[in-house]
Amino acid sequence: MPETRIPAAQLRGFIAAAMSKLGLPEADAGIVADLMTEAEVQGSDGHGAIRLAPYARRIRAGGINLKPDIHVVKEKAAMALLDGDNGMGHLVMQRAAQIAIEKARQCGIAWVGARLSNHAGPASLYARMALAQDMIGMYYAVGNANHLPPWGGPDMLLSTTPIAVAVPAGEEPAIVLDMATTVAAYGKVKAKAQRGEQMPEGWMIDRQGKPLTDPKHAEEGFLMPIGGYKGYGLALVVGILAGTLNGAAMGSETIDFNKDDVSVTNTGQAIVVIDPDAFGDIDEFKARVDKLIRELRASERMPGVDRIWLPGEQSHAKRIANERDGLAMSPALLAQLDTVAKDLGIPRIQETT
Amino acid sequence: MPETRIPAAQLRGFIAAAMSKLGLPEADAGIVADLMTEAEVQGSDGHGAIRLAPYARRIRAGGINLKPDIHVVKEKAAMALLDGDNGMGHLVMQRAAQIAIEKARQCGIAWVGARLSNHAGPASLYARMALAQDMIGMYYAVGNANHLPPWGGPDMLLSTTPIAVAVPAGEEPAIVLDMATTVAAYGKVKAKAQRGEQMPEGWMIDRQGKPLTDPKHAEEGFLMPIGGYKGYGLALVVGILAGTLNGAAMGSETIDFNKDDVSVTNTGQAIVVIDPDAFGDIDEFKARVDKLIRELRASERMPGVDRIWLPGEQSHAKRIANERDGLAMSPALLAQLDTVAKDLGIPRIQETT
Repeated sequence: MPETRIPAAQLRGFIAAAMSKLGLPEADAGIVADLMTEAEVQGSDGHGAIRLAPYARRIRAGGINLKPDIHVVKEKAAMALLDGDNGMGHLVMQRAAQIAIEKARQCGIAWVGARLSNHAGPASLYARMALAQDMIGMYYAVGNANHLPPWGGPDMLLSTTPIAVAVPAGEEPAIVLDMATTVAAYGKVKAKAQRGEQMPEGWMIDRQGKPLTDPKHAEEGFLMPIGGYKGYGLALVVGILAGTLNGAAMGSETIDFNKDDVSVTNTGQAIVVIDPDAFGDIDEFKARVDKLIRELRASERMPGVDRIWLPGEQSHAKRIANERDGLAMSPALLAQLDTVAKDLGIPRIQETT
Repeated sequence: MPETRIPAAQLRGFIAAAMSKLGLPEADAGIVADLMTEAEVQGSDGHGAIRLAPYARRIRAGGINLKPDIHVVKEKAAMALLDGDNGMGHLVMQRAAQIAIEKARQCGIAWVGARLSNHAGPASLYARMALAQDMIGMYYAVGNANHLPPWGGPDMLLSTTPIAVAVPAGEEPAIVLDMATTVAAYGKVKAKAQRGEQMPEGWMIDRQGKPLTDPKHAEEGFLMPIGGYKGYGLALVVGILAGTLNGAAMGSETIDFNKDDVSVTNTGQAIVVIDPDAFGDIDEFKARVDKLIRELRASERMPGVDRIWLPGEQSHAKRIANERDGLAMSPALLAQLDTVAKDLGIPRIQETT
């Protein structure tokens, strides 16, 4: 079925209207709409418009605090711990990024953790906030559902535990790594299900250890960690840094937001910002990053490989195309958004100006 | 052939004698001997005694500054950039860890990078230095030889880029993750070669993309990144953080210390220290880590799996055994150490008291 192209501003307006109608204060609805739209624009289709329906469901079930008192509970020169008061994760992490950038300017580096937050979209959204300040951003999160068992077991006690790192460049696009510690992110499994596609072998296995390729049966299996026991270890330590350190949920404490719309998720996230200007001249740093990018891109290719990509380069190309042509939305996604519009009594996205 | 057990103190004395004879000041020789021995004690056999011969070769070739002026070149409240003045990496990174711990105590978190450093042994050695202060330690490094191409290419422009994270626990052993971003670390390839063993498929491929399993032909292929393009991305951003950010070697600038004993390697490393006490009560944090460890360890096992391991737990068990029984050394390794002793005119390890 053909995809429809929707201008980003139209999606933004639709999400803002939906969030307002759901009870978020207008400014907060605007921030959430900006960030969800930006997720879609950068090609993070597992974390953009597809999330509106589940967010709406959770809000209507009373699972989100619409008027949160997001506040700093612990603070030192280069760190802060935020209490998100169960507000939308986007609001908590935008605030965290602002604080981290400010502190990094003073101290050279800063780390801001959050507890009592919620799902905030793609990890790179927040890591990238540092780029506008010519800083390096890193983001870690405990995912909102456990899909990964410890190595050797079937008990899903860990999330896919996303990691993002954004590094400013000079003339080249920034390097932006955004990855789960599993071979595939669960959002990609959901996107495959939405599109009615099968998953490649290696993404998931079932409890008998056999490959699981039908995303409609994803509930019967679990995701595979990258590098086997290494991905398990990485998911564990990143989860400790984003969750346990902040007093947020980790391990069996994690609330599966696909199944439970009301319990406080106590989501833990962390953002780290480094100011390269503290280490030396920022322009020299960016020139060194450019040199490295060009060296990798120009390096020899294996037979059948068209191009050596840098992390974030495909997303950068998608952003340019999406801003120019509008956002490609499948009929299934548009139908889902129409249902949200009908439920809330707001104009459909295609009637949104 | 049977392995010989050597008490840790005996190895330490032998290395200290060798380093002194090579021209290191006595205190520095002691620090290097302590850290190389500790590497062996914790079971990092690719980074312990096996490195003495190549270190000696480099020092005798003039590739190491024996009286370095290791100094801070840039500093802010929560960061420092060290110039290692081409000294032994162990000296540079021990100093970096001390500074990071001190700054983390003040600021909650600290990041210390180094340039003009050298190979410093296993990553976890430095991450673990934070544990004695009840702090979390992280360590990143650009490896001293490139074995990893960008995804899709055969040009080895990246190192295995080791990462370590050490998290203090309460009654349980600390969680210590120490991993390369490749399926296998190159040190493990060298250890296989030393022991005359074959590598499993999946560690390396040759330039035609075929599995390479004979470690004696390691020069003809390259290591595989974990999770395919994800491991490439991770190696790249960690390399930028440990190398490019510090003005240290990265990409084609990396000197292969297996082939070149004289060029200044300009090795880049970074250590990050977080004080969990800044985020809340340290004992509560450690109790949460204990709870998580026990939950993972007690979780269900797949058929044929004896135990769910935590990162660092096997190394912890090795440390206990090595301290009790002495360090297991192969005849090949002992012969290598005897050659070093003969070359330097110092007593053999088995004659060292």
